[in-house]
Formats: sequence, structure tokens, C-alpha cells
Amino acid sequence: MSHPGKPDSPPPTKTSHREIERKFLVARLPDGLNAGIAQRVVQGYLAITADGSEVRLRRLDGRFLQTVKSGTGRERNEWEIELTRGQFEGLWPATVGKQIVKTRAEIVDGANVFELDRFEDALTGLVIVEVEFDTPGDADAFQPPSWFGVEVTDDERYKNRNLALHGVPKR
Amino acid sequence: MSHPGKPDSPPPTKTSHREIERKFLVARLPDGLNAGIAQRVVQGYLAITADGSEVRLRRLDGRFLQTVKSGTGRERNEWEIELTRGQFEGLWPATVGKQIVKTRAEIVDGANVFELDRFEDALTGLVIVEVEFDTPGDADAFQPPSWFGVEVTDDERYKNRNLALHGVPKR
Repeated sequence: MSHPGKPDSPPPTKTSHREIERKFLVARLPDGLNAGIAQRVVQGYLAITADGSEVRLRRLDGRFLQTVKSGTGRERNEWEIELTRGQFEGLWPATVGKQIVKTRAEIVDGANVFELDRFEDALTGLVIVEVEFDTPGDADAFQPPSWFGVEVTDDERYKNRNLALHGVPKR
Repeated sequence: MSHPGKPDSPPPTKTSHREIERKFLVARLPDGLNAGIAQRVVQGYLAITADGSEVRLRRLDGRFLQTVKSGTGRERNEWEIELTRGQFEGLWPATVGKQIVKTRAEIVDGANVFELDRFEDALTGLVIVEVEFDTPGDADAFQPPSWFGVEVTDDERYKNRNLALHGVPKR
């Protein structure tokens, strides 16, 4: 039988993006790091499904956001709305046990911009650096600086949703 | 290892409820039914998880609601916030393939109030009546009127989330 509201064409996406990025652990931050202003990110998940969908609450820069992601890989869609503080606080308790707090800093290093995430609370000690690229070729050509550790780009355990659920992976 | 934000006590619930209800299919509505004003309910799911959690958008009476349910059975918690129309419309496309439209009417029959749900779109033809009770004893003692069909109280396939995902069950 057919489905209620089954689409004839792909659903519209509020924000559609295809990121090309690589992700590395950081064992020790270099001295004299030129990090920009750090931003505290508090996020929690209202739901995480087995097929890769998630509903996430996020608080940053005094803004409150709710993001819905569905699908995996290239078929990933994303919708985002801004919440009021009251709405955020009404839903936040539903994220207990599925929360993440981190401080994000941007590091400009020559032509590259690195996003450095320092995790807090139960994830304290975990530091991850991300680099975004315009093309897959750029991503392949990238030479990580010496302070970059093990690459975890394809390691599902380092996705924020999995860190929130399961904590720091045993290596 | 411990969990980020792991609670020491159960999380607070915005709305907490334990419903005692029975649910029946309706094959044919009786003549001269004393139904109150019907209300159109449009709802869609942002996420449905295997462990019984869900994030639901609902539009009724010109209001826009988002409800988060977690857990199953007696441990079920629920949080609900009101959305603006704009917020609702920003998220609604994320519910494609997981939507339900129904018309709900209240029927007063002696001491009982029946909630009659007439489903639309791909679920057209499906009619379900629900009766709520104050005590388990009242529920046991209830004698369904002759126009009530098969009882589906414990049939998971008739939960709204499953109707939204899988359509009308084959009997």
C-alpha cells in the first residue's frame, strides 16, 4: 500500500550541505597556538535513530537551535529552526544522557582554518580538530601538521551523537 | 566510564501522564451519532526510534506543538512545547513519509466519552475509537457498544507512529 505523504520528489531542505572534511585527534596542543575566540557549544539529542537520523538541540552564542538530520552519507538532509530560550529549556530535560559540552576555537594556519573542539564533562581530555575542504582533491592533498594525531574521519565512534551516547572510545 | 549528563534521578517531565485506555476498530458508524465538533489533527514524526522514543509535530486548533516521548510502558516520559507557525513549517518537510491526518470527534454516550479518529489520505477508511478510564477496574468492566469492532488496545500496529510508517495493517 502507499504511504501517507509519500513524496514524489525529494523533500525540500532548509539547509542543505555536503561537507568535505577530515577529522583528527589531538594529543597535545602546540605552544603559541593562534586560536580565535572560543565558543562554548552545549548540545543534546532528543532522538537518535538506528538509520542515522537525529533531532538535536544546540545552544551557542546565546542562540538556541533545533536541527533535524535524516539519512546518511550523500543522501543526508538537514532542517534547522531557531528556538526561544523558553522552548529550549522546555525540551532540554529530554536530552539527559545524550548531551555534549565542548569549546570550539578556530585556528588559522596559513591557507587552512582548523576547528578545534575541546570536550568537557565526561568527555574531558578529548580534543578533536576538523578541517573543511572545497574539493575532494584538496582533502586528499592536505598534509596534517605535526601536532595532529590519529585521523578519525571515518570512525563512527567519534561522531558527536556517538560520543554523547557512549563516551570516549577505547582505542 | 560514566556518561555525559547521566542523571542521578529521573529527569523532570513537562507533562507526565499514565493513560488507561482501550482502543477498538469501527467498521460502521451508527446512525444518529451524537458527535461533538470534529477537530482536524495533522501530525508528523521528526524521529521514531527503535526503543520507543519519538519526536512528533502536531497541528490542531490553529496551534502547533512539538512533543518528545521517551521510554515505553510505565517509564514513559513526555515533554511538549508550542511552536510558532514559522517554526512548524520549517520542520514539517522533515516528516515526509511519516505523517498522519485524522479528524477527531468526541462522542458522549451515557457516562462514557469516546474519542473517534477518522483517518485520511493513505489511511482513509480506518476508523478507531478510544475510551479513557479512571481506573483499571473501570477499563475491565467496560462493555463496548455493538458498533465497536475488534479491540486493538495491545496491537502495536495501530499506534499512530506505526500507522504513519507502515499504513493500515493487514488483518
